[in-house]
Amino acid sequence: MHTQSITLAECLALDQADSLRSLRDLYQVPEGLIYLDGNSLGVLPKATPARVAAAVAQEWGQDLIKSWNSAGWFQMPLLVGNKIARLIGAEEDEVVAADSTSINLFKVLSAAMSISEADHPEKKIILSERTNFPTDLYIAEALCKERGFTLKLVEADELEIALQEDVAVLMLTHVNYRTGAMFNMLAMTAAAHNVGALTVWDLAHSAGAVPVDLNGSEADFAVGCGYKYLNGGPGAPAFVWVNAMHTNRFWQPLSGWWGHSAPFEFTSDYQPATGIARYQCGTQPILSLTALDTALDTFLEVEKLGGMPALRKKSLALTGLFMRLVQVELSAHEFGIATPLDEEMRGSQVSLTRSEGAYAIVQALIERGVVGDFRAGDGKFQADILRFGLTPMYTRFVDVWHAVRHLKEVMDSNEWQQPRFSHKKAVT
Amino acid sequence: MHTQSITLAECLALDQADSLRSLRDLYQVPEGLIYLDGNSLGVLPKATPARVAAAVAQEWGQDLIKSWNSAGWFQMPLLVGNKIARLIGAEEDEVVAADSTSINLFKVLSAAMSISEADHPEKKIILSERTNFPTDLYIAEALCKERGFTLKLVEADELEIALQEDVAVLMLTHVNYRTGAMFNMLAMTAAAHNVGALTVWDLAHSAGAVPVDLNGSEADFAVGCGYKYLNGGPGAPAFVWVNAMHTNRFWQPLSGWWGHSAPFEFTSDYQPATGIARYQCGTQPILSLTALDTALDTFLEVEKLGGMPALRKKSLALTGLFMRLVQVELSAHEFGIATPLDEEMRGSQVSLTRSEGAYAIVQALIERGVVGDFRAGDGKFQADILRFGLTPMYTRFVDVWHAVRHLKEVMDSNEWQQPRFSHKKAVT
Repeated sequence: MHTQSITLAECLALDQADSLRSLRDLYQVPEGLIYLDGNSLGVLPKATPARVAAAVAQEWGQDLIKSWNSAGWFQMPLLVGNKIARLIGAEEDEVVAADSTSINLFKVLSAAMSISEADHPEKKIILSERTNFPTDLYIAEALCKERGFTLKLVEADELEIALQEDVAVLMLTHVNYRTGAMFNMLAMTAAAHNVGALTVWDLAHSAGAVPVDLNGSEADFAVGCGYKYLNGGPGAPAFVWVNAMHTNRFWQPLSGWWGHSAPFEFTSDYQPATGIARYQCGTQPILSLTALDTALDTFLEVEKLGGMPALRKKSLALTGLFMRLVQVELSAHEFGIATPLDEEMRGSQVSLTRSEGAYAIVQALIERGVVGDFRAGDGKFQADILRFGLTPMYTRFVDVWHAVRHLKEVMDSNEWQQPRFSHKKAVT
Repeated sequence: MHTQSITLAECLALDQADSLRSLRDLYQVPEGLIYLDGNSLGVLPKATPARVAAAVAQEWGQDLIKSWNSAGWFQMPLLVGNKIARLIGAEEDEVVAADSTSINLFKVLSAAMSISEADHPEKKIILSERTNFPTDLYIAEALCKERGFTLKLVEADELEIALQEDVAVLMLTHVNYRTGAMFNMLAMTAAAHNVGALTVWDLAHSAGAVPVDLNGSEADFAVGCGYKYLNGGPGAPAFVWVNAMHTNRFWQPLSGWWGHSAPFEFTSDYQPATGIARYQCGTQPILSLTALDTALDTFLEVEKLGGMPALRKKSLALTGLFMRLVQVELSAHEFGIATPLDEEMRGSQVSLTRSEGAYAIVQALIERGVVGDFRAGDGKFQADILRFGLTPMYTRFVDVWHAVRHLKEVMDSNEWQQPRFSHKKAVT
C-alpha cells in the first residue's frame, strides 16, 4: 500500500527517461485525448492509412485477381501469423491470422476435445473460469452440448482443486478482461498436464501486452485478438497457435478450402494442409488483414528497443503508477482495485471497483477526454468495473497522472452525480 | 446454333443503346483491360477508396471506440445485410453480412441438419451435386462425419431421382462455379419439400448476377459471397439468409457473443438474439465490411434503372453474344461450350472447354489484357474450363467482341502454344 504520491514533474521525468518513448510517435493518438481503451480497440498506426489505401487503389483496383500472387494475398494469413509468433513465444509457421477469436476458439477447442477423446475417452469435462470472457464460454457451452461434454466453471482460486483426472481441457483466458489478473501460464499448463488435460489459452488481453511464451510453457492451443494491443483496426482478424506436436492431429469441422492441402485443385474430398495452414477455413478480409499486417510491422519496431521485456517493464511501471496514485489521491472515495498488486499476476490494465456510480464516473471521465470503459458486474459475484487499459506502446506516465487527476476532480466535485452521466446508452 | 457473326460496329451500337451503360462509370475498371473475372473478384467501385480512407482515418483513427455507436459499426452487419436482401428476394432483417461463405455454410447447414433431426430423425442424407464448389462439400463432409449423416453426391441431372424420403437437406450452389449452369430454385425447392427435405442454397455466383427470389421460392437457407458480383473487395464478408419460419429454431455451435441477445451484458450463458442477428459469431472486420457497404450503395444504383430484371436482360445479352461469337468465329478451333445455351439455365458467365491447351490459352489471353480464368478438370468427369465472367454492371458489348477477337487471334496464330504459357504457376 503506497502512501506517497508522485508529482506531474516526476511523471514528466519518467517519460523523458523512458527508452520506449519514441514508439508513441508511430501512432496517431488523437490530440487532447487520454486514451486508456487500447485493450478494447488499439489506436491507428501512422503507417496504416497509406498502406490500406494502396491495397484498395493499386492491389485491388488496378491489379485485381493478380494480387493473390503479386501482392502476397494468398500467403498473408501465414505471414501475419509469423509476425504475431514473435510476440507470443511461437516459432515460424505455427501461427495463422484468420477469422474472429470466437471462431478460432471453436476450431482449437474442437481439436483439443477430439485429441482428448482419442487419447482419454473417459474425460468429459471442459474446465474454465466463471469470469472468463463470455464468448469463450458460449463457444465451449455449444461444443459441450454437441459432443456430450460438460462445461465446468469455477472461480480462479478453485481451479487447482477442480483440476482432476476427469478434465479433458483446461480453457483459460491468460489475462482476465475484467480484472486484468494474469494466470501463470507455465504453472497452470503443468498442473493441467499433470492430470492429463490439454490447455487452450485465449491471449486476447496478452498478445502485445505482456510477454507470452507458448512453447516455453508447453501450452497446447492458443487463440488471440488482432484489434486490441496489436492495433490491427476494428474487427481485425484474430489468430490461432497450435503446439507443433498436435497440429497434424487435426479434427475440426470448419474444414473449408483454405485449409485444404491443394485448394486450387478443387478436389471434392477434403485433405487438410500440413501444418498450421489447416486452421484456415474461407477467404480472409484482405483489407482488414492488410491493416493488421501494417500494425505488426509498426509493433515489431519494439524489437529494436528491448522487445517484449522492455515493454513489460514499462507496462508494469504504468499500471503500478496508476494504482499508487489511486491509493494515495483517491483514498477518500472508496474505490477498490480489482487488479492484482502483485506484478507477476497482472496484465496491462487497471480495473477499479466502486459500490456506486461506476458507470457514471466512466462517462464523466470520457466527457473530460479520459477514455476508459465500464464493464457491468452481475450483481452477485462480480462488481461493476471501471477499466483502464495502459497500452505501453503509446501511453505516457503523464497520461496516467492526468487521468487520475481527472478522476479525483470528478469525485471531489461530485461531477459524476450529474444526471446526464447516469443514463446508460443502449449499445445498439 | 448461330451461324451469323456480329460486327464491332453493331456491338458499339448495342452499348450506345444500353440503358445501363452509365453504371460502368461508377467503377474503376483498369484502363486497357478487358476484365472478365468479376465472378472471382469484382472491380473497385469509385466510391470505395474515400469511404475506406474515412473509416481508417476518422472513424478508427480519431473517434476510436466511440465509432461502434457513432459510425454504426455495431449495426453494420445487419445494415449491409438489408442492402443485400434487396438483391435476393429477402425481406428486411432476414440477412446478415459476416464471416466467410464457408463459415456461413457451416452455420446454416448445421441449423438445417438440427431442424431436420428434430422433425424427421430418420433422415440422414445430405444431397448435393458432385461439381458443387469444393469448400461446400468439405464443410458438409465434416458436418456429416460429426453428426452421423452421409453426404451423397450425384450429377445435376441425377438429383431428381436421388431426392428420396431419406434426404434431410438438399444443398446446392444456385449457379455452378465451373459451368455457369443455373438451377431453377423454385422447382428444386419444391421437389425437396415434396420429400420433406430442407434446402440450403449457395448464392456465390448468383447475388448481383441473376435475379434471386428466396422468399418467392420458399427456400430454407442461403449463403453468399461479398467479393464477386457485389464488388465488396478481396475477401469481403459473406452473408447468410434464413427463412423467417426457421430463424428462431436455431441451433449451431458458432454461438459467439455477437449472436447473443445482449452481448454487452456479458452474461455467462448463451441466449441467442431474436432473428437473423443470431447468425453472427464474433467481431467483424470493419474496414472490409465498410468496403462491402460502399459497394452495395453503388450496386443499388441499378434500382433506378430497372433493377435486377434490367441487369439480367443485359447479362443474358452479353453471355449470348459471347457464345454466338465463339460458335461463329471459332468454329475451326474445337471449343466446347459448357454453359447452357438455354437462358433459363445459365448464370452470368461463359465457360468454354477444349481437350487441349485450356490453361495456356487463358494465359495467352491474360498477356493480351483479357482476364478470364482457368479451372482444372478432374481428368475424368470434368473437363478443363476457360471461364469468363460477364459482369453486367461494367462489362460492355465491345468488351465481349474484343475478347473473342483476341481468343481467335490466339488460336489462329498458335500463340497459345508458346512454351511460356504452358507452365502452371504455383498458386502459393
